[in-house]
Amino acid sequence: MSNTASFSEGAGPADLSARETAALVAAGTLSAEAVSAAFMERIALREPDVQAFAHFDRDRVLAEARTNRGGELAGVTFGVKDVIDTADMPTGYGSAAYEGSRPPWDAPIVALTRRFGGVVMGKTVSTEFAMSSPGKTRNPHNPAHTPGGSSSGSCAAVAAGMVQVAFGTQTAGSILRPASYCGVVGYKPSFGTLNRAGMKPLSDSLDHLGLITRDVRDAAFAVAALAEKPALAEGMAGPGLRVGLFRTSRWEQAEPATRAALVRTAAAIEAAGGTVRELDVPESFESYFALFDAVMGWETPRTLAYERDSLGARLSPLTLGFIATLARATRDDYDAALAVLKHREARVEELLEGCDVLITPAAPGEAPAGLGATGDPVFNKVWTLLHVPALSVPAGLGPSGLPVGVQVVGRIGDDVGTLAAAAFIEDALKAQAS
Amino acid sequence: MSNTASFSEGAGPADLSARETAALVAAGTLSAEAVSAAFMERIALREPDVQAFAHFDRDRVLAEARTNRGGELAGVTFGVKDVIDTADMPTGYGSAAYEGSRPPWDAPIVALTRRFGGVVMGKTVSTEFAMSSPGKTRNPHNPAHTPGGSSSGSCAAVAAGMVQVAFGTQTAGSILRPASYCGVVGYKPSFGTLNRAGMKPLSDSLDHLGLITRDVRDAAFAVAALAEKPALAEGMAGPGLRVGLFRTSRWEQAEPATRAALVRTAAAIEAAGGTVRELDVPESFESYFALFDAVMGWETPRTLAYERDSLGARLSPLTLGFIATLARATRDDYDAALAVLKHREARVEELLEGCDVLITPAAPGEAPAGLGATGDPVFNKVWTLLHVPALSVPAGLGPSGLPVGVQVVGRIGDDVGTLAAAAFIEDALKAQAS
Repeated sequence: MSNTASFSEGAGPADLSARETAALVAAGTLSAEAVSAAFMERIALREPDVQAFAHFDRDRVLAEARTNRGGELAGVTFGVKDVIDTADMPTGYGSAAYEGSRPPWDAPIVALTRRFGGVVMGKTVSTEFAMSSPGKTRNPHNPAHTPGGSSSGSCAAVAAGMVQVAFGTQTAGSILRPASYCGVVGYKPSFGTLNRAGMKPLSDSLDHLGLITRDVRDAAFAVAALAEKPALAEGMAGPGLRVGLFRTSRWEQAEPATRAALVRTAAAIEAAGGTVRELDVPESFESYFALFDAVMGWETPRTLAYERDSLGARLSPLTLGFIATLARATRDDYDAALAVLKHREARVEELLEGCDVLITPAAPGEAPAGLGATGDPVFNKVWTLLHVPALSVPAGLGPSGLPVGVQVVGRIGDDVGTLAAAAFIEDALKAQAS
Repeated sequence: MSNTASFSEGAGPADLSARETAALVAAGTLSAEAVSAAFMERIALREPDVQAFAHFDRDRVLAEARTNRGGELAGVTFGVKDVIDTADMPTGYGSAAYEGSRPPWDAPIVALTRRFGGVVMGKTVSTEFAMSSPGKTRNPHNPAHTPGGSSSGSCAAVAAGMVQVAFGTQTAGSILRPASYCGVVGYKPSFGTLNRAGMKPLSDSLDHLGLITRDVRDAAFAVAALAEKPALAEGMAGPGLRVGLFRTSRWEQAEPATRAALVRTAAAIEAAGGTVRELDVPESFESYFALFDAVMGWETPRTLAYERDSLGARLSPLTLGFIATLARATRDDYDAALAVLKHREARVEELLEGCDVLITPAAPGEAPAGLGATGDPVFNKVWTLLHVPALSVPAGLGPSGLPVGVQVVGRIGDDVGTLAAAAFIEDALKAQAS
């Protein structure tokens, strides 16, 4: 993948990709302050409708931009999901019970963002504790629809052009699903790729930190800088890419919009010179759902022990109900699940056999109407459980005119190949649409 | 292992084991308040010399004891290392830079302790960020000697009889080594056994939460309650236990005190009907040290990104020097180490082949003189890296009259067997000494 450094005349700084911005700021053609100012104009325009921010302070942003240190991410605008600790902005974990809370530190991912020259524009709305109780954010494509969750504000902020990169967290489907609903790229790297310290924890075995961007190359660019692994932005996929079309054991939950998006994507890949082969869904696949429930069901209610025992009445009924459902898992279920998951790599290899990546639904369909729920992570959970890299790539619109993504899944640790494949697929879809 | 419930006449409540306390409080024979009061007498007596507590508030403890909920840990007295978050006590992470900081929550392990009836007596001293810069604590056996670190206060508090159970954290050797120096049991369970959310993170791949207790059965009792896995306290090891004596590739760093402790332990095991066989140290063993350095060396300097970039001048020179040494690790070293460590289980199996557990040094020797350094984790790092359960069991005194432990190491996930073996070895050592 190449990181274009040319500045298209006529477009404003808020139209630039993250990689263009960094190149122009590094070259002295553009200042971090000018970039932030341009994005703040967008925020002024869109935020009243979208409500992506849990915290936004214009003066603080300008001060941060003015003291920008430069670096690989020089001037790039970031949103930070409000379940991630920041020392200079309140961190409410999406919960009224923690409203106005101020951690004594920046989570490492925030400190690294700033170290490398990124500018944090604000905190983005999360559902309560990155679970199911929604925040105020609306889908930028239609404010009567959910943006999805739990990374609601991060996906909406990128979709509305208010930031270039936003951090999300995913324990079940909290990055990929809202990215699909908002028509942006959501990227959950292989487990452990990005430093997840300082995020409000739910499940040590499942919690991932990831990114939301406008396109795949920006995701690769940002993760390469933040993981200090340049190779992540340098993968190449071309004709000959071998893609498996994988319907999962829950295909009956895929709505026509999602089915059509997969058909479009497969056709686009083939038109671009890739091969797409439909894969059988092994009978064992369905068993991963029970493993997921055992792991999150054991870990999350215990990780939220303080919240349950000491803040109970201040949590939303949705959150309490969600925890109660999770808490049905037993220690034996949990231990048995961990024993199976020791062999994650081999299981992933079976699923991807003969393919470079899979394409599979990113979400059941378009963003559901209403703001009272954030949709179903049914198509994301298993990939989170398996620790594979996964991206949601926008794949056109559904019958209601709302975006639909496809999920691109690779092998554990092959983020280079998976990002490259996702960029190839993104290009193929754009070529097909034009 | 049996949890004796009888109350020995003549002994005060502060002489009871954790399991005796819980049984007596559950039976209504003793109140949590009376237990706490007895331990606070000990604290009044010993704390001026030992200085194990970073925070201790008599009134808060009494209030907590009065509202005790009962449960598996009813009335048992706990110390919480100051790198673990608490909502009702300051949490300074052992650092002047965070002094007086107050988290908005209790770490799950603290909330679970309270849920099950344990009483938190206070926060115990940690080195800065659980690294190398010491706190004020002294070795209860000789105040001119270090208690070891980083779980300095937790080990000293248990050794001085000020609490029955204390939480420690171990990234290299921060539980086992100070436990050896202080003559108490240090237990690092298999990676992930205890919920480690809310501890100041250093290294996602290495950070463990564990326990310090007076004897092995109390460690088993407490972890069984906190991990909600009763089997952990129910293992049995008897004659026929197969123990491997493993000198590691760093035997030249084992001082006479440690060598003698291992000889004593081997003799005690054989006298009790176990078998001890000296194992060859595979050539590959030495390579684990480089893997450890690669993993901690990559992860820790990044996990402390905020501290380095924003608090730098407020950190101790020892901490800054330690981080600078760690930071020599490269991304390639790190990725290569993680690739090897995918096969941890098989590597552990090779090391333990034909044995139920290993015995190996817990520390180079007795606690070094002076309070300016906390000793060397050379004999702990590899076991932390391998995620195995490990305990330090007191094994008599060295030439300076200070305690020396031996380390008992089991297979990943076999905490039941490892705890039972450690209890057998502890009994054997006590029988030999009497």
